[in-house]
Amino acid sequence: MGERSLIAAIEALLGAGGAPQVRNPRLVRWVGDDAAVVRARPFAVTSVDAMVDGVHFRSGRPGTSLADIGHRAVAGALSDLAAMGAEAGEVYVALGAPEGFTAEDGLALVGGMEALCARTGAVIAGGDVTRAPALFLSVTVVGWAEDAAVLLTRDGARPGDLVGLTGPLGASAAGLALLDGRVDAASAGIAPDVAAALVAAHLRPEPRLREGVALARLGLRAGIDVSDGLATDAGHLAARSGMALALDLQAVPLAPGVGDVARALGEDPREFAVTGGEDYELCVCAAPALTSAARDAGVTTWIGGVDAAGPDGPGVHFSGRPAGAPPLSGFEHPVR
Amino acid sequence: MGERSLIAAIEALLGAGGAPQVRNPRLVRWVGDDAAVVRARPFAVTSVDAMVDGVHFRSGRPGTSLADIGHRAVAGALSDLAAMGAEAGEVYVALGAPEGFTAEDGLALVGGMEALCARTGAVIAGGDVTRAPALFLSVTVVGWAEDAAVLLTRDGARPGDLVGLTGPLGASAAGLALLDGRVDAASAGIAPDVAAALVAAHLRPEPRLREGVALARLGLRAGIDVSDGLATDAGHLAARSGMALALDLQAVPLAPGVGDVARALGEDPREFAVTGGEDYELCVCAAPALTSAARDAGVTTWIGGVDAAGPDGPGVHFSGRPAGAPPLSGFEHPVR
Repeated sequence: MGERSLIAAIEALLGAGGAPQVRNPRLVRWVGDDAAVVRARPFAVTSVDAMVDGVHFRSGRPGTSLADIGHRAVAGALSDLAAMGAEAGEVYVALGAPEGFTAEDGLALVGGMEALCARTGAVIAGGDVTRAPALFLSVTVVGWAEDAAVLLTRDGARPGDLVGLTGPLGASAAGLALLDGRVDAASAGIAPDVAAALVAAHLRPEPRLREGVALARLGLRAGIDVSDGLATDAGHLAARSGMALALDLQAVPLAPGVGDVARALGEDPREFAVTGGEDYELCVCAAPALTSAARDAGVTTWIGGVDAAGPDGPGVHFSGRPAGAPPLSGFEHPVR
Repeated sequence: MGERSLIAAIEALLGAGGAPQVRNPRLVRWVGDDAAVVRARPFAVTSVDAMVDGVHFRSGRPGTSLADIGHRAVAGALSDLAAMGAEAGEVYVALGAPEGFTAEDGLALVGGMEALCARTGAVIAGGDVTRAPALFLSVTVVGWAEDAAVLLTRDGARPGDLVGLTGPLGASAAGLALLDGRVDAASAGIAPDVAAALVAAHLRPEPRLREGVALARLGLRAGIDVSDGLATDAGHLAARSGMALALDLQAVPLAPGVGDVARALGEDPREFAVTGGEDYELCVCAAPALTSAARDAGVTTWIGGVDAAGPDGPGVHFSGRPAGAPPLSGFEHPVR
């Protein structure tokens, strides 16, 4: 199919026939011009996330729909805005369509994106479609902030801060193990509804946009989203802040069923949870005076604290592990 | 090579070690956080352009460097900002790197982008790198405007406007024919410096950013960049404006050597020029009172005028063609 008929089908889905401000009051121009025009606010917060078939997802895997793939690509990008505490704005999508990719496929993919956008206040405002040897998506998200000082950053952790999470970890990695058939839910004693929730956590992660904005407004200054695994992501906070993060592995909350999946894989449940990626919970640092309000704003669990870096320099130390255990680390997108 | 070492090499090239405002005063945060933070102006103008090896370029073709490919991907996206009359702002690049793509390759590619950005006031402010089955680039460019009413659009053409171009056409398509070896410069009687200029026009097109901004400020309201061939792009202006564009084919200016290349291919030089793509000149419409100032702002040639659409509806009519000749049209990115 030609690029133009695929583009036409997607534009029809997005309501491109109507006036831009009907689609979203921020939009001044979009489809039909050389570029989208959007009402800005004082600071633009922008992130790009590219996902490729065979690297970040498998389009042909049973149980994974194109709507899931679309959702997940946008969720991963929006999660970067959540990690900054920015409000979601516009989404721009470059789609590489392989041989045999139909207009129906395009509608399913973009439908998954559009549903997530509608729920989070984001709006697909433009993009590009091209032929490609394999399906890829490059998602650019733009968020907005009134004040660049009221954002979460990776270098804002201070000695005495508590380190918190907005939810349990491990669900995405556990869901992937179930999807891949590396673990059989029934044999592992996992109830069908619990297994379904784990799979959904992998395929349809929810970016913590509301929590990110609330925590930034509250006065928190350090945060990151758990995309590469807490061990890796907390390491970024530590390195950029020049701090030592002391985390209690046993305090890390696990989503239901994660323990069963980890044990079926022969892994320690909490080590599995902090090295698995793409939970998209936020890991934030809060001054002690803010912890109670931070809990109201979405932090569910405190897992450790921030210290000035010692002679070993900045880093993350997990307590609650066997003596001499090797360092934990996250992953760098293996093919799966 | 791993994604991280490739990213590290690119970040070093871009000066990621320094403070963001040293790189560019608009930048508040970039590398090292989950998203870039940029000082905004009232309206954001955003376009996305994806280019894929084997579809939009051929990475292995003799005479084409990775720096050329990087330049061309960014130039194509910036040209959309020129077409709107927006000032260039930030560039975000998603890079899909195939097996065997080295840090040196990444530096060459991004170096080509960076040199163009430096010349046009744009700044690479973020991006993503991933493994991919073939090299691809998805470039998101953000421009800025003080007033959304002071922009060029596709629906702004009015009866009585003159239609102008910011430069000659056909050079990019002619350069591609030379690069591909479909035409031999010497046999076609093309001097080496003329041939080199044609090849450069294809590999290193220059977006007409300065001209676009000047023409929008002057009061012109309709414009498009010639990316798919004038026949196609003028058709977009006509359709979106609901107008009939009457263009004089013989008035279309040709870059030096284009006639020789077209004749060597057995094609009419001007038909070749208006159906070839990627010249990235601007095609604009100007009220008669503005034509003199528009010439000072970068229009080199008037090629026709705008009428109210007749009974056949909106469209483009080229005069100066043989009676009964089939309609002209541009191209939809054949593999080349």
